[in-house]
Amino acid sequence: MQALVFDSQLQFTRHYPMPRVAENESRVRVLRAGICNTDLEIVKGYLGFRGILGHEFVGVVEEGKMRGARVVGDINASDGTCATCARGDETHCPHRTTLGIVKRDGAFADYLTLPTRNLHRVPDAVSDAHAVFVEPLAAACEITERVHIKPTDRVGVIGDGKLGLLCAQVLFLTGCDLLLFGRHEKKFAFLQKRGIRATTDAASMPGQFDVVVDCTGNAGGFDLARKLLRPRGTLVLKSTFHGEQAMAFAPLVIDEITITGSRCGPFAPALRLLEQKLVDVDSMLSAEYPLARGVEAFEHARAAGVLKVHLLMN
Amino acid sequence: MQALVFDSQLQFTRHYPMPRVAENESRVRVLRAGICNTDLEIVKGYLGFRGILGHEFVGVVEEGKMRGARVVGDINASDGTCATCARGDETHCPHRTTLGIVKRDGAFADYLTLPTRNLHRVPDAVSDAHAVFVEPLAAACEITERVHIKPTDRVGVIGDGKLGLLCAQVLFLTGCDLLLFGRHEKKFAFLQKRGIRATTDAASMPGQFDVVVDCTGNAGGFDLARKLLRPRGTLVLKSTFHGEQAMAFAPLVIDEITITGSRCGPFAPALRLLEQKLVDVDSMLSAEYPLARGVEAFEHARAAGVLKVHLLMN
Repeated sequence: MQALVFDSQLQFTRHYPMPRVAENESRVRVLRAGICNTDLEIVKGYLGFRGILGHEFVGVVEEGKMRGARVVGDINASDGTCATCARGDETHCPHRTTLGIVKRDGAFADYLTLPTRNLHRVPDAVSDAHAVFVEPLAAACEITERVHIKPTDRVGVIGDGKLGLLCAQVLFLTGCDLLLFGRHEKKFAFLQKRGIRATTDAASMPGQFDVVVDCTGNAGGFDLARKLLRPRGTLVLKSTFHGEQAMAFAPLVIDEITITGSRCGPFAPALRLLEQKLVDVDSMLSAEYPLARGVEAFEHARAAGVLKVHLLMN
Repeated sequence: MQALVFDSQLQFTRHYPMPRVAENESRVRVLRAGICNTDLEIVKGYLGFRGILGHEFVGVVEEGKMRGARVVGDINASDGTCATCARGDETHCPHRTTLGIVKRDGAFADYLTLPTRNLHRVPDAVSDAHAVFVEPLAAACEITERVHIKPTDRVGVIGDGKLGLLCAQVLFLTGCDLLLFGRHEKKFAFLQKRGIRATTDAASMPGQFDVVVDCTGNAGGFDLARKLLRPRGTLVLKSTFHGEQAMAFAPLVIDEITITGSRCGPFAPALRLLEQKLVDVDSMLSAEYPLARGVEAFEHARAAGVLKVHLLMN
């Protein structure tokens, strides 16, 4: 089958072996997949993954119980039986594999496999292009899944990349007083049309925010988030990036700050939000490429000002 | 009046001016006061405070509405009128002074002043020696005030200093499965008699704890806390210490860890716990000194294995 494979470098091949379907798994014919910042990081050596990249996808089940269904899929394949899974933390299963990230070939290919219970049927009202946004939108929903955002909270989102724009849209639906801090006005113009305030002035309103979400993907985001946060505020870390940063702990204690890491999220709410068109993802789709031009698509995705790039399988 | 004053060095004097009593404040004749690790840190230059040290005390109101009452007092003197105070975060008032810590003379003296609303009457069943523990015990109660500890949680407390021993006792009352990690068995033997488990084996049960409280007062405590914590667990930072530490942020996101700083706490619950003798503070009182021997008392408080040292004013 066709696949976009990373093995010290990124390459397209037409001769990758078809995936075997293990017990309780399904084989999905991929229709479309999205390039995520994590993919760009993996290509730089992050996480040490080797294999087919990609974890944002929509496809059709070709083998398995939901045969014929158009589906998206939770990317963490947990064992479903250990103590971690039993308490509902399946995405943290110590034995998990993760689609296109940890020990499991990903979605930039004609076919992928996932446990059948990971699959979610896509409502007819959600197009293929929209469905590929379910995975990152679920990651945005993980904020409100893990942190109680009140309608009266003042919330800051830092970063106008893909994740920041999705997080801002999800958080705005709580009714909170939201401000997005970005660098490129043209990237967030579509939010402003929908009433979501955004600014390039990072110095505005220090110490005024109840909750600040760092979606920058770099260490500078943390420092700005701390400046914006009020005492007893909550700082949500959304983005993973390489390396360490020096941090003073005493101010966290004195100001009684809470820092919460947040990763993959629930698919069902993300599908509901897309079905009701409560989130605008059309404005975030920058380009589409056939899978055979995947290496070129990665270059495009890396360029400044570019949002989501999709790969089409057929 | 007599006072123990820090001004580049710690000195006892009999000739410190009596404090003026501002509007809405009371003057308290101090009976007894406790030396806290924060005092030891201030003497090393932490926070840049100059003046009378001390913030753990019991005394009798000599001037003010509660004249004659035996009292303890919240150490943060807030303005009570700003937006921070209005939302109930008085201990974070940006205009606050703090007894013996920030811009307000402290309790190691014959007299101190505090806003009258900061004072709490001490029940007869609570002795002077016990009452001095209200302030640090309130700081332990701030953990359960800020973090929902469930009776089914597995909770670790790291550190067998004064704060660790108080936090362990308060947390144990939730019914949780508690383990204290310490260095000196003799310091926590009294906890074990009360059924609170403690160990010197820091390597036991990595990744098994729902909540870990770091009371070590050094950077090593954070690293151990992270090792003990399960994915989606909560790390409570209780101790302030100088300087910065290198930290990788990605693992916090991947494991969805929450870190919460926790500082001063509510006095009323601490008084209730002491009144009902639900916390053993007798076992934590290592020595008593008259105020005139305060410098010597500080030396004693700094020594290894020593817990609380009290100063007696008369």
